[in-house]
Amino acid sequence: MAREPKLYLIPLGGLGEIGKNMMVVRYGENILVIDSGLMFPEEDLLGIDMVIPDITYLLENKNIVRGIVLTHGHEDHIGALPYVLRELNVPVYGTRLTLGILKEKLRERQMADEVKLHCAKPRDIISVGPFKIEFIRVSHSIPDAVSLAIETPVGVVVHTGDFKLDQTPVDGEVTDFNRLAQLGEKGVLVLLSDSTNVERPGYTLSEKVVGQTFDDSFRQASERIIVATFASNVHRLQQAITTAHRYKRKVAVVGRSMVNVVNIARELGYLRVPEDVLVELDEAGRLPRNRVVYLTTGSQGEPMSALTRMANRDHRQVEIMPGDTIIISATPIPGNEKLVARVIDQLFKQGANVIYESVSGIHVSGHPSQEELKLMFNLVKPKFFIPVHGEYRMLIKHANLAREMGIPPNNIFVAENGQVLEISRRSGRFAGRVTAGRVLVDGLGVGDVGNIVLRDRRQLSQDGILIVVVTISKESGQIISGPDIVSRGFVYVRESEELMEDAKEKVKLALDKCSAKKMSEWASIKSMVRDDLSRFLYEKTRRRPMILPIIMEI
Amino acid sequence: MAREPKLYLIPLGGLGEIGKNMMVVRYGENILVIDSGLMFPEEDLLGIDMVIPDITYLLENKNIVRGIVLTHGHEDHIGALPYVLRELNVPVYGTRLTLGILKEKLRERQMADEVKLHCAKPRDIISVGPFKIEFIRVSHSIPDAVSLAIETPVGVVVHTGDFKLDQTPVDGEVTDFNRLAQLGEKGVLVLLSDSTNVERPGYTLSEKVVGQTFDDSFRQASERIIVATFASNVHRLQQAITTAHRYKRKVAVVGRSMVNVVNIARELGYLRVPEDVLVELDEAGRLPRNRVVYLTTGSQGEPMSALTRMANRDHRQVEIMPGDTIIISATPIPGNEKLVARVIDQLFKQGANVIYESVSGIHVSGHPSQEELKLMFNLVKPKFFIPVHGEYRMLIKHANLAREMGIPPNNIFVAENGQVLEISRRSGRFAGRVTAGRVLVDGLGVGDVGNIVLRDRRQLSQDGILIVVVTISKESGQIISGPDIVSRGFVYVRESEELMEDAKEKVKLALDKCSAKKMSEWASIKSMVRDDLSRFLYEKTRRRPMILPIIMEI
Repeated sequence: MAREPKLYLIPLGGLGEIGKNMMVVRYGENILVIDSGLMFPEEDLLGIDMVIPDITYLLENKNIVRGIVLTHGHEDHIGALPYVLRELNVPVYGTRLTLGILKEKLRERQMADEVKLHCAKPRDIISVGPFKIEFIRVSHSIPDAVSLAIETPVGVVVHTGDFKLDQTPVDGEVTDFNRLAQLGEKGVLVLLSDSTNVERPGYTLSEKVVGQTFDDSFRQASERIIVATFASNVHRLQQAITTAHRYKRKVAVVGRSMVNVVNIARELGYLRVPEDVLVELDEAGRLPRNRVVYLTTGSQGEPMSALTRMANRDHRQVEIMPGDTIIISATPIPGNEKLVARVIDQLFKQGANVIYESVSGIHVSGHPSQEELKLMFNLVKPKFFIPVHGEYRMLIKHANLAREMGIPPNNIFVAENGQVLEISRRSGRFAGRVTAGRVLVDGLGVGDVGNIVLRDRRQLSQDGILIVVVTISKESGQIISGPDIVSRGFVYVRESEELMEDAKEKVKLALDKCSAKKMSEWASIKSMVRDDLSRFLYEKTRRRPMILPIIMEI
Repeated sequence: MAREPKLYLIPLGGLGEIGKNMMVVRYGENILVIDSGLMFPEEDLLGIDMVIPDITYLLENKNIVRGIVLTHGHEDHIGALPYVLRELNVPVYGTRLTLGILKEKLRERQMADEVKLHCAKPRDIISVGPFKIEFIRVSHSIPDAVSLAIETPVGVVVHTGDFKLDQTPVDGEVTDFNRLAQLGEKGVLVLLSDSTNVERPGYTLSEKVVGQTFDDSFRQASERIIVATFASNVHRLQQAITTAHRYKRKVAVVGRSMVNVVNIARELGYLRVPEDVLVELDEAGRLPRNRVVYLTTGSQGEPMSALTRMANRDHRQVEIMPGDTIIISATPIPGNEKLVARVIDQLFKQGANVIYESVSGIHVSGHPSQEELKLMFNLVKPKFFIPVHGEYRMLIKHANLAREMGIPPNNIFVAENGQVLEISRRSGRFAGRVTAGRVLVDGLGVGDVGNIVLRDRRQLSQDGILIVVVTISKESGQIISGPDIVSRGFVYVRESEELMEDAKEKVKLALDKCSAKKMSEWASIKSMVRDDLSRFLYEKTRRRPMILPIIMEI
């Protein structure tokens, strides 16, 4: 009897990190990819614009990749697609809004015509190779989010995507508890579940809570209202628009990504806007101040965003005035706390009343807290469990939670990106690794910035650079011109003339030493100059600028 | 009748920011300074080690500065003293532990002999010029913290310093509510009060709560315990040591600043260590794993700290093993969230059980929440109120709280650093500004890094630098050698040879253009090279590296 092929689950992103989610499901010579997200760079990735998964493994198996299926339309789930699809032209499956947002992305890059997009509704089942994929509605901070139930020859794999179990979602589209329960009843082999909020006890508040907070804030506002939130949170936008309408205010949308989402969501019917409520920015400027609401991006304090420019009196069309109410309906993503705090301070300085994080109910999360995660276990009753979407400590906590819920420790796998999980009907085990990691995108360059470039940027950012230029005669070995020293990011040159003169002397001495020792290797001469000068500067300043000796021989 | 001199309060630091606290009290030709703190640099201050207040105003009035009085021994209150005292040798007043810590700082810089330190106890009254300063005990996250009641010819000014109203402090030294109440009863002209935690409702938990959490964690720990916390939190160290002793564990102290504080606090009697409990690091390594506790720095994920090195398997003496319990008894200071998260993840990866922020009671704040702030108003009953120690939004919230507590809006002053508050018995007003701001310390340089250097560092950090070197004949104007291009932090040169070759061609073309136009000004030639090359590189890479043309003429 031929050995039956096994099922392999291979995370290429999203494990041990928040972002760039990508999970590979492989059965025999068939690969299905779940999501293709990007990650925003951490601070130590100087100059990097975004981080995407390393898809070497997929490219090595190009011919057997059957398709990419998407759980929802957030950047950390679809943001890498323009890069991935350029190298891997396979069909993409998703719900209507998800594909609507993706299409706009591809259109901006002139890629819309090349990509085959297949739309599915919740409870639809699509066949991709040997996989039957069912879309199951869940709540999240963007409409049309789904969990996936993937029927494989080995058993059913449920991938929750990002979710929360909102009992009272804004659009009334409740999580399909029944279908999850039916699957659990029939038997689920593996559950992969969202770990983002596993550190929070209890339940995540319903999105509707924010609507109540909006109502309170709008009722009390006497001047203009500015609501900043995530562009993609259509439910949040809906609640802001509905509340504005209730208080007879018009709504103007500010910020390119917000305008995009509002257009797509309206067109596809995910955003219901009462007639005449939306106005253009210049019209909003002419309305009485208590008759207008601005919906804007910038809730993360992004330096170029509309809200930050308003806070810095740098926005052409919207000027903050004393008495305005600014509602920041978001929490800062880790790493953005300082940026957001600075924007809030600036808004207060202009006399605005800022309602932010410190007011409860001004924002709710889109991810499940512990009790929701437990409910997911109880509905799906999986045999094996793999925590996904979370930093390492979250995966560990989620694994602990699974144990508490009765899943045997041997059936729980805390994996890292690139680790291969081999699953049969009876058992699971780690079975090696494939290439995985991060690819840095800087401008048009994808992967051309690596550790050496980053290390240089880091050194340059800390203490700057000194360039030492000297011209030497080929014949005599004598200095013809220089040494000259040019510095950037080191010290104010005007106030440090003496230091620079002394530095030149040091270089001369080093060069003399070289010629006395009859050194002729350029590399050793340069390294002598660099070391002597570096030691001198460290002594004088306790700084270690990059030193770049340029020796011209003519 | 001669006009009576007025009282002036002039913040030189700590308003609109957290850190570098410094408040000037001036009456006629007499200046008293409260605190001289430093601030740790925000991320955009690339390469900067610390930020201290600009004391131009004090130096301009050098002859009338009568002294500096300290509220407690934290860096944000005493950290700038080594710099300030170098330029302003005036007496310094403080409590015993505060001066003990300061002395160590001055000793490290060979300044201990030059500075006149005057020690005072709570309820002591010292005379400095026309000011009578009373020290009033308060609780805080360091022992021996005081509020100051400054009797001036115009009235009494109460400066809370940093405080919390802990009803059950670890050392039993309760805030001197009675004295604050007496002062309030007699009449206080101005209150300056700590705004750090004004966004938090309710009361700040007692430090003793952490002791209970330690007890739970220590009881359950089967292997080694490592407690990371702020070095200066002597109460926290005391509780860790007491709990270790209770569970028959020895304690080893790791990290220079922690060792320093433990020595000073023991010597001065602020830390009571049962006999034989403290052991050296190498002895601790030889003890059974369930008999030892390490106390360490690094609770903020500082890259060079002991805990971070342990997490990265980079510490010479302490290696994390599966089953170890790591207690991070601190919350990340805004901006440090990512660093701390990374350390926690690394520790989990080594199999340790990490107890951190997500466990309640593992850390409590040292600053007052809203109800404590209200109690302070009710005790002191000031006529005028100035919120201090906080970012702008916090000062605003504290001002709002003061209004709720019945202080007339006209008597509340939300000031910025450098703003002069003129106070008489009946009224207060803003009366101009003095020089104030930040001085950046980078290595040995104080103030030699400014906006231009920082702007260069920023550009260098984002896209690196290209240096274009070309040698030109003085006589013919012809290129003798070059153009050569050296880059750092831009792209992998090996993978971008073509780009670099094209870039050289661009430079040649630019130089040809210059000679065709008979340009002879070096500045214009350089700027032509820079502009053409920059445009070319942006087109090809969407990056804007710094471009430094170096043209040698021989």
